[in-house]
Amino acid sequence: MMDELNYTMLCDFYELTMGNGYFKTGLHKKICYFDVFFRKVPDGGGFAIAAGLDQIIDYIQNLHFDKRDVEYLRSKGCFDEQFLRWLKYFRFTGDIWAVPEGTPVFPGEPVITVRAPAVEAQLVETYLLLQFNHQSLIATKANRVVRAAQGRPVLEFGSRRAQGGDAAILGARATYIGGCAGTACTITDQLYGVPAGGTMAHSWVQMFDSEYEAFKAYCEIYPTNATLLVDTYNTLKSGVPNAIRCFKEILVPKGITNFAIRLDSGDISYLSKQARKMLDEAGLQCCRITASNALDEELIQDLISQGACVDTFGVGERLITARSEPVFGAVYKLAAVETEAGDILPRIKISENTAKITTPHFKKVYRLFDRATGKALADQICVWDETVDDTQPLTIFDQDAVWKTKKLENFRAQELLVPIFQAGKLVYRRPSLKEIREYCAAQVDLLWDEVKRFHNPHTYYVDLSEKLWLVKRELLRLTAEEG
Amino acid sequence: MMDELNYTMLCDFYELTMGNGYFKTGLHKKICYFDVFFRKVPDGGGFAIAAGLDQIIDYIQNLHFDKRDVEYLRSKGCFDEQFLRWLKYFRFTGDIWAVPEGTPVFPGEPVITVRAPAVEAQLVETYLLLQFNHQSLIATKANRVVRAAQGRPVLEFGSRRAQGGDAAILGARATYIGGCAGTACTITDQLYGVPAGGTMAHSWVQMFDSEYEAFKAYCEIYPTNATLLVDTYNTLKSGVPNAIRCFKEILVPKGITNFAIRLDSGDISYLSKQARKMLDEAGLQCCRITASNALDEELIQDLISQGACVDTFGVGERLITARSEPVFGAVYKLAAVETEAGDILPRIKISENTAKITTPHFKKVYRLFDRATGKALADQICVWDETVDDTQPLTIFDQDAVWKTKKLENFRAQELLVPIFQAGKLVYRRPSLKEIREYCAAQVDLLWDEVKRFHNPHTYYVDLSEKLWLVKRELLRLTAEEG
Repeated sequence: MMDELNYTMLCDFYELTMGNGYFKTGLHKKICYFDVFFRKVPDGGGFAIAAGLDQIIDYIQNLHFDKRDVEYLRSKGCFDEQFLRWLKYFRFTGDIWAVPEGTPVFPGEPVITVRAPAVEAQLVETYLLLQFNHQSLIATKANRVVRAAQGRPVLEFGSRRAQGGDAAILGARATYIGGCAGTACTITDQLYGVPAGGTMAHSWVQMFDSEYEAFKAYCEIYPTNATLLVDTYNTLKSGVPNAIRCFKEILVPKGITNFAIRLDSGDISYLSKQARKMLDEAGLQCCRITASNALDEELIQDLISQGACVDTFGVGERLITARSEPVFGAVYKLAAVETEAGDILPRIKISENTAKITTPHFKKVYRLFDRATGKALADQICVWDETVDDTQPLTIFDQDAVWKTKKLENFRAQELLVPIFQAGKLVYRRPSLKEIREYCAAQVDLLWDEVKRFHNPHTYYVDLSEKLWLVKRELLRLTAEEG
Repeated sequence: MMDELNYTMLCDFYELTMGNGYFKTGLHKKICYFDVFFRKVPDGGGFAIAAGLDQIIDYIQNLHFDKRDVEYLRSKGCFDEQFLRWLKYFRFTGDIWAVPEGTPVFPGEPVITVRAPAVEAQLVETYLLLQFNHQSLIATKANRVVRAAQGRPVLEFGSRRAQGGDAAILGARATYIGGCAGTACTITDQLYGVPAGGTMAHSWVQMFDSEYEAFKAYCEIYPTNATLLVDTYNTLKSGVPNAIRCFKEILVPKGITNFAIRLDSGDISYLSKQARKMLDEAGLQCCRITASNALDEELIQDLISQGACVDTFGVGERLITARSEPVFGAVYKLAAVETEAGDILPRIKISENTAKITTPHFKKVYRLFDRATGKALADQICVWDETVDDTQPLTIFDQDAVWKTKKLENFRAQELLVPIFQAGKLVYRRPSLKEIREYCAAQVDLLWDEVKRFHNPHTYYVDLSEKLWLVKRELLRLTAEEG
């Protein structure tokens, strides 16, 4: 279904005008290096979760222009006929490195690097960014919500408020990577195996002549998995009492203990405590309480700190749209070009906004882990031909305050970016979504608590090697002189 | 491409458990009436723009469960075999009324009404909401941005930050409905005819040995449509001077006057004024200035009030995600059920949050226009069998303050909801996107300026007829007694 789609034409038009331009100036075969990186973690968080690679792989494998595409482009009247003919045979022939999905990532470091002839590298810009930005945004938000819930399962409920079909389907996939236990979105289960569940809406209750009859019918049809929505009329006066009556009349006699009520409006803290008391007094300690209603990590933290009796959280619109900060700002920037002789020449982009200055060159990234605690200490960005030798001490320094140095010893260095495509061929074993989710949880565990704080987290070190820093300084100096 | 997708399985799982439950309790053929309505305009605005109907029509027409879908559902182990067999022949057989795309709509009034057997009506909930919520969100935001630009063209540039593929593609469609002049998203042009355009990224400039050579090459390849991006190195020291040089060397001698520069960073107000001065001094009064860089309606208003010399705005992430308020909260609520004899029985949903109480019954909505000015005066929600006679004076009243009445005379009444499907058949002539865009602009023109204010707009009147108000009051009273 989703994987039958060819998204080649989901590109910014300028990628095509530039492509045609590269073709006409003979630059189209020039090998370029582009980095995907971001400048800021949403919500002021200390780290983001990388996601979206699997869909990027599908996209790259399907990259092609079919007849209709070429005809449409011809109708625009601005493309060279030779270029249009060439597009018919267009395939991706380059290399791609990327961090695996579920990896915690930090501002300023490459998370995807593309090495390809100019037209190819340019064309994939929009889709790579869109997919990485969207899924990383949602996985990062989900991870915050899941951490706020402190072990209580979080279910994704937001399809109806998602920004389009893909946002619902792949958004639910991303929430699972970030740690959600399941989703209400059926198709995401069907396509990606994210466990889908759900029981009833208010309309079920309204469809029957009384709330009691609605609950009774549900318990009879689904005795082993009944979650009754208790707020259609009056939560404490009718909803909870009717639920208790049905549980005791229908489920308890059968020895069933797996049932729950759901609160979807009102003061969740107050209502959950009152409902808990009523359930306990009725001897239904086994009955769980699910809460939903515009929740996010802040509200969940508040509810838990106020002693709300909630066992499971259903989180909708504020998760599926990352409402508090709905943009993940990764960008795609030229970092180097290759001469015909194969020399790699670094390229930089200056900007009026200094934060927008890029780090040039074809790079690799090491994550350095403390061997004593296992925790991640810092990331080191190097020039492609450097190697971090973790048998030797390493002095790292802050690129914005070069006098601040730190000597690392007894650490383990691991490359973050792994080969995905080589010469257009997929060389990566695609992990299952379950593996990605487990990997994500394990990697987040390797971050210090200070980095994981929701507000004002400690800034994790992402440093340049001395060699890379010197390249950047030199390019800045040269450009300043030219200006 | 997009229309080959079958989104039937993009539903909340509870729609299927309820469907199976209706089937088992014999309620599946019960005719239900569901309303789509929303409670709040995003960004505190005075009205929203309805959008997404065209995709909803595709969805309804394609609604079916294929073999794989049924197999997947069987694997969940909670559905009746008879129900699963029945799903194979499942089609939509009901009626749908909706407001045409591009219509300004207000909180509390039905914008879509579905009349169908319970299982069908329940199943379409998620997709109808998702599509209406997403496209209305973006069309509404676009309309704000376009109004802020006061006649200057606004182009949609946000694909790379959209929340998934559909958000980019259909989001760009929705921005066009809301008044944008075009998009950077190529596929939205190909599929829906929204004019796509674009010229160069920073990488084009970096790919050449100098900015001058990059600009020169571009002007030579695209002499009739060159927009040069001038902020790769230094906007005023190199970008604008190099652009001026190329325009004068290559385009002006050919008599070409259609060219522009684009500013994408820094202080747009300051830089645009300086650039304008430099261009004018070079005799290039014809050169337009395009600005982009995290713009929205607030920033555009500010820029214009500060005298920024911007002719065209490119708006990206803050439009395509509606960043300031990325959720459009329309809901789908049961309003009535039909007896076997065909009597329509109103249904209400109470809530701990009084704002969440629904307006019961099968309804219709009239928009009342002043015949003298042409302006929209109020919307009147009636019971389905009522008719507003606009040859007679009409007294409307505020449902929250019933003593506040207003007598309308010399008005024209127009039904807002039009038939889309009847007994499963499409009965609606689908307007072209261009027609929708023009209709939207014309309808927004019929609103008073007070309703169009960005902050604290006048609340447009959406009133209930006396008959409907009495039905609602009676149901509230009955439910309170039961509680």
